[in-house]
Amino acid sequence: MTMEQLGYIAALLTTGSFLPQVLHTLKSRDTRSISLAMYLMFVSGTVLWLLYGWSIGSVPVVAANGITLLLSSVILAMKLRQVARDRG
Amino acid sequence: MTMEQLGYIAALLTTGSFLPQVLHTLKSRDTRSISLAMYLMFVSGTVLWLLYGWSIGSVPVVAANGITLLLSSVILAMKLRQVARDRG
Repeated sequence: MTMEQLGYIAALLTTGSFLPQVLHTLKSRDTRSISLAMYLMFVSGTVLWLLYGWSIGSVPVVAANGITLLLSSVILAMKLRQVARDRG
Repeated sequence: MTMEQLGYIAALLTTGSFLPQVLHTLKSRDTRSISLAMYLMFVSGTVLWLLYGWSIGSVPVVAANGITLLLSSVILAMKLRQVARDRG
């Protein structure tokens, strides 16, 4: 296995892992046990990983973080909705 | 800012993001809105990212994924405990 293939399998797993969480969250409409601070930090960090991956020319890092950013943003949006609902 | 510094800030944010989730989970003892499939895939993927980072010689990728592995394993363990409890 090449290093690049290893990077892609790693990317498929960590990026793909957010898909079942998105489905779980959309289905249950429950985000109570999800940490808001986690997703605020995670989404910001993913933006910086994108820039880092681009700057070192690592296609797996860029591809993984682009999709991760999309999926984790959905979870953050659902969490923010619940926080707003609980306060309102 | 150097590329390496950018990688470290990205790593601090995405890796650090699991700390509030660990604290949230330990405090609430609730993992119901957390997806088991997500953490099974995520922990496996983080192991592969470690290997990838090591193989391309990227210190930020190795450092980030080492700590992320520790923190996400705690969340996975708490989730597995709840799944076992709910079945038992």
